[in-house]
Amino acid sequence: MTLTDTNSWTGIREELLRRIHDRIWEPGSQIPHEADLAEEFGCARTTVNRALRDLAESGLVIRKRRAGTRVALNPPQRATLTIPIIREEVEALGKTYQHSLLERACQPVPPILHGVFHASLGEDVVYLKTLHFADDRPYAFEERHINLKAVPEARARKFEVSSANEWLVHNAPYSRGELSFSALNASDETAQILDCTPGTALFSMERITWMGEEPITHVKLIFAPGYRMHSVI
Amino acid sequence: MTLTDTNSWTGIREELLRRIHDRIWEPGSQIPHEADLAEEFGCARTTVNRALRDLAESGLVIRKRRAGTRVALNPPQRATLTIPIIREEVEALGKTYQHSLLERACQPVPPILHGVFHASLGEDVVYLKTLHFADDRPYAFEERHINLKAVPEARARKFEVSSANEWLVHNAPYSRGELSFSALNASDETAQILDCTPGTALFSMERITWMGEEPITHVKLIFAPGYRMHSVI
Repeated sequence: MTLTDTNSWTGIREELLRRIHDRIWEPGSQIPHEADLAEEFGCARTTVNRALRDLAESGLVIRKRRAGTRVALNPPQRATLTIPIIREEVEALGKTYQHSLLERACQPVPPILHGVFHASLGEDVVYLKTLHFADDRPYAFEERHINLKAVPEARARKFEVSSANEWLVHNAPYSRGELSFSALNASDETAQILDCTPGTALFSMERITWMGEEPITHVKLIFAPGYRMHSVI
Repeated sequence: MTLTDTNSWTGIREELLRRIHDRIWEPGSQIPHEADLAEEFGCARTTVNRALRDLAESGLVIRKRRAGTRVALNPPQRATLTIPIIREEVEALGKTYQHSLLERACQPVPPILHGVFHASLGEDVVYLKTLHFADDRPYAFEERHINLKAVPEARARKFEVSSANEWLVHNAPYSRGELSFSALNASDETAQILDCTPGTALFSMERITWMGEEPITHVKLIFAPGYRMHSVI
């Protein structure tokens, strides 16, 4: 046994991981009971439990109330993304955040979003074009539509002091969202806004959020060249 | 109350989420004590604790030892990505999957990956260049390094029948991973491999996985034009 610390749950987890990796415990096989592992490691049962819970949360073992714990046959690969408010993302880089509202209009739902806003087609949406800056450099260009049926207060908001991104997070909670990520070549307009060469590869994110069945907002962000999104499994 | 199941922690979590979303519990406000919630729901205190722990882990509530539990002022927006095996991703599109091994070598760790593989610098890595196809069209170009110290069986594998992607998922489980996503302009070589015009914006993913402290593999995928990655909140 190569355990460095049998008193900490992370030390126990390290050893359990080693046994899974080295196939001492085969995929699909049952692993020893908590109490037996606690005895083997000379630690509290709660310590073993904490380690097993962690492995279960990352999908490496499957725990069942009566059937005990098994090594997963096919661990799912789930990654978690944290999507911060852009101001916070910029400030976390040690840079100064600013934003500038380039355009604001109340208008009918554009045809490209009829699918998303189908329940609210009679209503106007607020359309916003915003440029986010990090230390005076363009950071991301945002195009957003806000559903006035879901967020009527947005009709009167100017979104000049607090960005729509930040205001909505605090004032229009949502229950679910869909995101997609892609790469696109900068158009002439986007290149001018983001101060880069037309054709530069840019990272883009689209997000639609709902509260229950009601769409809240659709947003498309195009990040300045070099942007990288991080995630952990 | 709209609870469907007050005996399961997931049922309790559902109801706590509803109260947060509906602003019954305002951002920043203190929520009732565990014992009071257990009494209200007629469940064990450990069940409430499990639900609160889950909400704390996703950043929706802040728990402090003496100060109790508060609704987060500024909940982070966590999205979940499922990262399938490429064959399964292609087949889910109703297309036929194939892959072709373009290059395979055993070689020292390249300088660009010294940081990642620092614990195994004396060992060779397996370097693989693979092209994944969907219906005879290039789908993604993969460059991979496998740490032979962690996965010695990889030295003898040809990866011609089963891709390294798929073989590793089944044979070299990992405990954690880091991913990053970005956009890049196709180089001449990449454009030729993916059958597109040089300069085309392409979506790229890099992933490093570890088992405990030992790196398993580093992979860089560059997807054919038009690729879109989806995620839910």
